Amino acid sequence: MRWAVLLAGGSGTRFWPLSTPENPKQLLPLAGTNSSAEDAVERLAGLVPRERTLVVAGAGLAARLQDRLRLPPENVLVEPRAASTAPALIWATWEAQRRDADAEVLSLHTDWVVGDAAAFRQTADMALATARRHDRLVTVGMVPSRPETGYGYIVPGTPLDDTARSVARFSEKPDAATALDLMAAGALWNSGLFAWTASRLLAEVAAHTPEVGRAMPALAAGDVDRFFGDVVPISIDVGLLERSGAVAVVRGEFAWDDVGTWQALTRVRPKDTNGNVVVGEAVLHESQDCVVWSDRDPIVLYGVQELVVVQANGRILVMPADRAASMKQLLDALPPEVRDVRP
Amino acid sequence: MRWAVLLAGGSGTRFWPLSTPENPKQLLPLAGTNSSAEDAVERLAGLVPRERTLVVAGAGLAARLQDRLRLPPENVLVEPRAASTAPALIWATWEAQRRDADAEVLSLHTDWVVGDAAAFRQTADMALATARRHDRLVTVGMVPSRPETGYGYIVPGTPLDDTARSVARFSEKPDAATALDLMAAGALWNSGLFAWTASRLLAEVAAHTPEVGRAMPALAAGDVDRFFGDVVPISIDVGLLERSGAVAVVRGEFAWDDVGTWQALTRVRPKDTNGNVVVGEAVLHESQDCVVWSDRDPIVLYGVQELVVVQANGRILVMPADRAASMKQLLDALPPEVRDVRP
Repeated sequence: MRWAVLLAGGSGTRFWPLSTPENPKQLLPLAGTNSSAEDAVERLAGLVPRERTLVVAGAGLAARLQDRLRLPPENVLVEPRAASTAPALIWATWEAQRRDADAEVLSLHTDWVVGDAAAFRQTADMALATARRHDRLVTVGMVPSRPETGYGYIVPGTPLDDTARSVARFSEKPDAATALDLMAAGALWNSGLFAWTASRLLAEVAAHTPEVGRAMPALAAGDVDRFFGDVVPISIDVGLLERSGAVAVVRGEFAWDDVGTWQALTRVRPKDTNGNVVVGEAVLHESQDCVVWSDRDPIVLYGVQELVVVQANGRILVMPADRAASMKQLLDALPPEVRDVRP
Repeated sequence: MRWAVLLAGGSGTRFWPLSTPENPKQLLPLAGTNSSAEDAVERLAGLVPRERTLVVAGAGLAARLQDRLRLPPENVLVEPRAASTAPALIWATWEAQRRDADAEVLSLHTDWVVGDAAAFRQTADMALATARRHDRLVTVGMVPSRPETGYGYIVPGTPLDDTARSVARFSEKPDAATALDLMAAGALWNSGLFAWTASRLLAEVAAHTPEVGRAMPALAAGDVDRFFGDVVPISIDVGLLERSGAVAVVRGEFAWDDVGTWQALTRVRPKDTNGNVVVGEAVLHESQDCVVWSDRDPIVLYGVQELVVVQANGRILVMPADRAASMKQLLDALPPEVRDVRP
């Protein structure tokens, strides 16, 4: 049967001061009125039921996620420590197989904004079918809309059928010129939307991913703490997809955004005629291409361009939009009494 | 005897959202820990006592000013309506003469920041002595530190004695090129610091200022409402000083600022090594030449230059420093529910 695995990691820094470790972006209504985590589960309706939807999260988030996503308690897998994506996905896939020997798994993240849920389900359905038909690990590649340097790219290889291809190679976080070349060559973004049968995934791990494979006996013994203690943190892309020969790619035919920065709100929220995105009460006078978020006070902008202005959780942040991608550098510079906020 | 007249007008717009009609800038601790109105009275210590210090203000401010400045109630003159500076100064001078037939008057504003109180008193003393000695209206000219286009300039004429000159002409709010020419020619800012004997002032008004002179019978009859009803609003500069031949100018030998905009705080407050002025809790990371004021939340600036960022009275304002001089344009554009704040 079909299972879904939702990864709900993230340290809550990119949307400071709105996001916090206790209330990270996937639990915030960044793109609309629901959180992206809630949307992620709703979007699976008709494809995978809640009883077969697993979420992997840290201890600080698990209870809140279970509550907000209305999942069975046993479907929330609590990571003893963050160890990148390979251990989380392999554990969840192993768990799906433990409950369902013939499990096939769709893996996704809780912080995505997807334009068309029906198209998403159609693509996911195709990816799962491809994984079964070709007995491969399937990655869904998104058609790039910009030469983004923060993503990995997939260069498709030879056709496997009408919709699936093998993967020629991966290119992780290219520079801007390379990203443009990749776009021109038809490369796709490696979004993290994957499909596989549990049996194929676990066989590939055994063959290619010793960093996690050597810890599998701990899982078999039911000792998740030891499993996470024994693994070497590694991403599923680097630790498995780039190493395995049994990978396929299908195209994602829907708008997709991982809303990685405050500036990303200009892609996923409606803009006024001056290109501004406003959430909360604000007046923008002679101002263009700004992102404004207020959780309390009216914000007045006068004669400014491409600024991010946020009031949230008792903090006010003002920065140019092009600094939104380097929030970590800012947070490292803040004194703890300013940085640490509580919702 | 010597009297002081403090003008406490102003509509409270230039320091929005901190200043309000009920709490305008002269009552705010813009430059330090005291308000400029309190500083203005303290600065007169030894020169003019509180018993002979009059303040002219609108009805909304009178009670608060009397309380904050610790003045006798009868020394607070409540304008029935705002009518520019000539009616206010003429009324106050008339009132000083009513109480003291030989009154000489020093006129000043409550919103000034003065660098050196002793030098201020020395100049004021000299201006009063000059007014008596030459029987002229004396204006204290400030040495310009920048080609300010928002002020009036005084071009000094022939010497009257070692420290006083006649006035060759006034130049009100010149354009930038003219302001540079005026500075080069030794012109001085017309600050509004004046000295005169009451008898000379009232004689000059009778001769040159029909806009107010025709209303004097109402004052003689003790009817202030009718006086303000009968006058034509006009400034003392346009209505009298530019018309009278009996004017003298002395140089003000002290730092003076009327703190006309948020940007002016960079002149009257200490700056950090990056040129920023911060009042309240804030962290400025890779940011230069900003003015930050917070009455509640920590404000974080990241990678910005020459911005004004203010949180006050439940509003947040963000604008470039060069917009600080056109606050009225902004306030005219704000909906009342955002514009109207209460301290």
